Amino acid sequence: MVGVDFGTLSGRAVVVRVSDGAELGSAVHEYAHRVIEQELPGSGVRLGPDWALQSPQDWIDVLKNAVPQAIAAAGVRPEEIVGIGTDFTACTVLPATADGTPLCFETPDEPHAWPKLWKHHAAQPHADRINELAARRGEAWLPRYGGKISSEWEFAKALQVLEEAPEVYARAERWIEAADWIIWQLTGVESRNICTVGYKGVFQDGAYPSEEYLAELNPGFAGFVGKLATGAVGEKVGGVTLAHLGGLAGRVTARASEWTGIPEGVAVAVGNVDAHVTAAAADAVRPGQMVAIMGTSTCHIMPSDRLAEVPGMCGVVRDGIVPGLWGYEAGQSAVGDIFAWFVENFVPASYVERAGEQGLHAYLTALAEKQEVGEHGLVALDWFGGNRSVLVDHNLSGVIVGQTLATRPEDVYRALIESTAFGTRMIVETFERAGVPVEEFIVAGGLLKNPFLMQVYADVLRRPLSVIGSDQGPALGSAIHAAVAAGAYPGIEEAAAAMGKRTENAYVPDAARADAYDRLYAEYRRLHDFFADGRMLHTLRAIRNEAAK
Amino acid sequence: MVGVDFGTLSGRAVVVRVSDGAELGSAVHEYAHRVIEQELPGSGVRLGPDWALQSPQDWIDVLKNAVPQAIAAAGVRPEEIVGIGTDFTACTVLPATADGTPLCFETPDEPHAWPKLWKHHAAQPHADRINELAARRGEAWLPRYGGKISSEWEFAKALQVLEEAPEVYARAERWIEAADWIIWQLTGVESRNICTVGYKGVFQDGAYPSEEYLAELNPGFAGFVGKLATGAVGEKVGGVTLAHLGGLAGRVTARASEWTGIPEGVAVAVGNVDAHVTAAAADAVRPGQMVAIMGTSTCHIMPSDRLAEVPGMCGVVRDGIVPGLWGYEAGQSAVGDIFAWFVENFVPASYVERAGEQGLHAYLTALAEKQEVGEHGLVALDWFGGNRSVLVDHNLSGVIVGQTLATRPEDVYRALIESTAFGTRMIVETFERAGVPVEEFIVAGGLLKNPFLMQVYADVLRRPLSVIGSDQGPALGSAIHAAVAAGAYPGIEEAAAAMGKRTENAYVPDAARADAYDRLYAEYRRLHDFFADGRMLHTLRAIRNEAAK
Repeated sequence: MVGVDFGTLSGRAVVVRVSDGAELGSAVHEYAHRVIEQELPGSGVRLGPDWALQSPQDWIDVLKNAVPQAIAAAGVRPEEIVGIGTDFTACTVLPATADGTPLCFETPDEPHAWPKLWKHHAAQPHADRINELAARRGEAWLPRYGGKISSEWEFAKALQVLEEAPEVYARAERWIEAADWIIWQLTGVESRNICTVGYKGVFQDGAYPSEEYLAELNPGFAGFVGKLATGAVGEKVGGVTLAHLGGLAGRVTARASEWTGIPEGVAVAVGNVDAHVTAAAADAVRPGQMVAIMGTSTCHIMPSDRLAEVPGMCGVVRDGIVPGLWGYEAGQSAVGDIFAWFVENFVPASYVERAGEQGLHAYLTALAEKQEVGEHGLVALDWFGGNRSVLVDHNLSGVIVGQTLATRPEDVYRALIESTAFGTRMIVETFERAGVPVEEFIVAGGLLKNPFLMQVYADVLRRPLSVIGSDQGPALGSAIHAAVAAGAYPGIEEAAAAMGKRTENAYVPDAARADAYDRLYAEYRRLHDFFADGRMLHTLRAIRNEAAK
Repeated sequence: MVGVDFGTLSGRAVVVRVSDGAELGSAVHEYAHRVIEQELPGSGVRLGPDWALQSPQDWIDVLKNAVPQAIAAAGVRPEEIVGIGTDFTACTVLPATADGTPLCFETPDEPHAWPKLWKHHAAQPHADRINELAARRGEAWLPRYGGKISSEWEFAKALQVLEEAPEVYARAERWIEAADWIIWQLTGVESRNICTVGYKGVFQDGAYPSEEYLAELNPGFAGFVGKLATGAVGEKVGGVTLAHLGGLAGRVTARASEWTGIPEGVAVAVGNVDAHVTAAAADAVRPGQMVAIMGTSTCHIMPSDRLAEVPGMCGVVRDGIVPGLWGYEAGQSAVGDIFAWFVENFVPASYVERAGEQGLHAYLTALAEKQEVGEHGLVALDWFGGNRSVLVDHNLSGVIVGQTLATRPEDVYRALIESTAFGTRMIVETFERAGVPVEEFIVAGGLLKNPFLMQVYADVLRRPLSVIGSDQGPALGSAIHAAVAAGAYPGIEEAAAAMGKRTENAYVPDAARADAYDRLYAEYRRLHDFFADGRMLHTLRAIRNEAAK
């Protein structure tokens, strides 16, 4: 079974055993163009601020390089491979012709012809209008996204194309997630996965936003959903299936077989998203299992049998993680990014010397770990990259409270770690208050490597942490979906149970520390409530933006 | 004319010309024992937290070393010297016998026998009781100190001695400011200066706190004022004069002449305090001239013809700066200390390299100076060392608001500078709202050497800054007082006009920047008001103190 994880800077292929998910071999291919933020390759056409594009050729090159290398590393024969599954960043979306050709292959000098990477943030004005109008009209789908959709998503990015490059918009017969486009390349047939359709495509209760609503945004936008998949879930309309996760999207074509070394006819799973497949990799696809993928930012993924309007969630989508359940998503804009920013900018040379080869993160962690809870006298708001959940406000910023002339870098470092844990607790509590229970908290992602940080989370959340048992969560999760698509298991839950890896009670809260954190968390909440309206932070940002002009 | 400034770590003597205040020579003597904070010299007896003592021998050694060296450096003949004046840190206070012998000379193993330096903060519980009882009884003197007296002052420190070392308290026939003790050593007669008697000795309207009040604090404390100067201003009671500033305390004795090289019989001015004499050095002793002595902390000194209860002032004392006017004092606990703390702890190696020989303060200032007002998006509360005025709360702490992942050290550095300017504006506005006009703002002290910082203050305060024309403000101020004591001038105002040095309009506000700062200051005030009650900051500190146990 092959799983391929398409990330922001590279793609990783992993070959795993169907019976138990054992990882037999893997390979990584770095994208030649990485993230295109300054100018277009070749032409040198300059991009505006907040733009972020990718090259579809880089994705194809992952299939051509990482996949055969992983198979070789695994030492398996190609005919042993029974399925391939993929996951992608999202919403990474591109305009294409009716046969799937990316428009940027035709007009490489036109910025809007290129795929817009998830972190393309230049459509914020369009998102603002989308949200304002939806709120004004009381669109029923809006609460399913915590009251606001993101500038990163399909409608905002498409509206930007329409208004800034109407000619590109007109030529774009299809507006498709990279997650689905890559499946098209493997199988030769277009399909759309219910995960991105729901979370990024604003598809709720069997429908997209209405033509009337879209026309009010811009008359030219009225027919936009014609570029997406239409019809009900599982239905094929105009040759395009709106497909369940873990479903069979099609079979490897001769061309794709040449690229990958996987025999023609092998099963290809429906496209999916990196965070969402990780839930399967952690065997955490049952109601109430919240998986936190903690890295530079944190994404929270949780299936549930209950539908509720959770304030500030990123979205709730029927079948969005596993068929038959509601799939919830929430997130924290910056987590590891905060620690990296602090270490790069606010730690003096003497610490670098004393840290030596272990590096500053390890050294500061070791110093911080010696402290009792609250000994630093600090509390911080973890909004240095804005606040995704529960406030959905990227114009918020960070706050650090309680410094004295005795405050040292390790004190702030610890307070920053704690602030992200408090932010997580706020999200968990918001879910539970909204009537969606969180039964188990499972951690995946790069921050797992810091046991002190994990213990802080266990203490702050007052609950044991489970941890994923794989370093390659997304790729393993994709392989699990491939196993389902290939028919090796009846469903994702069964496949995840056999192939996914999770250690329960990996970190257990300490009652005394948890009590001490309750007191700090109360102060965090007071800060949160004071700054949440953005009155001060928006003013500071507005002054900053005017001054920086 | 000789002026001697007794600081926290050293004493400085300056020889100046009577006619114009020209500085002819100076010398510094570092205290051998500096600040005694860990253990007593010799015996090694351990001190508790927040203790800070000094050795009287170090002060004598300033007379023996710095004074003759300054005279030698000036190239004047001893017989040309017509007066000597001194200033001291305050409240630095010691127990002594009736002949002026410090008790620590008799029992050097007893911590409470030693002089308590101004920054001895171990009497906070005693100050708390003093304030509570005074508020409960509605003592008339309390509003003269902004509603709270400090743990640094005479009554709090004496109450600590009484309750922790009653035997020392009983032996202390005199409880005397170092400012007055050093004059006793020079002249052989005890006198008390109205400045420390008023600001640190809680002497108001001709009286100390009542025996009844003191007895309620502790029955043993009822007769405490017997260890001080009693009687009216200018009156000699029991051989001790309560003396006006600029007055003649006595004449150099044979012994003091041997120490200093100053001829016997030369006029010695009444003792005084470093900040207060600086007003004379800046020729700023008229009503409404606020002198800010800006260094590690800032002290604000202003004569006025009006008496008002200014919230959070350190004190208002009749004749406390110059005879015939009310003398106001306010302050900011930490100013230069904040910048030093940040530079020592939160600036990375790359900045040290790029700064090179100019040093980090100059480099960060140069980077900060390039920014427009508000470009960093930050606002901070300058309470890293607590808040002296206008909140009189040493248990407050600092706050930094608005950081993003793009925030750099120079951004925070600039925001910290601005926060101290906002704190100053808060003080100035508090005076004016209370009906005490601030006509001119004059800066003295070490921070004068940063012109960018000065410009920030001018812009934030929306008023021109005058600056002192001497690097040795306190010593020059002491010499000015000596000139008055010696009869060279009829009063401090005339002497200051001739010998003091001040440049008006040294920094002039820029209207556009001042407008921009108004917007940031509005946010500073919102922060100030939110955190002023200490609800959050006191809680964080309490948690910290419990955790650190």
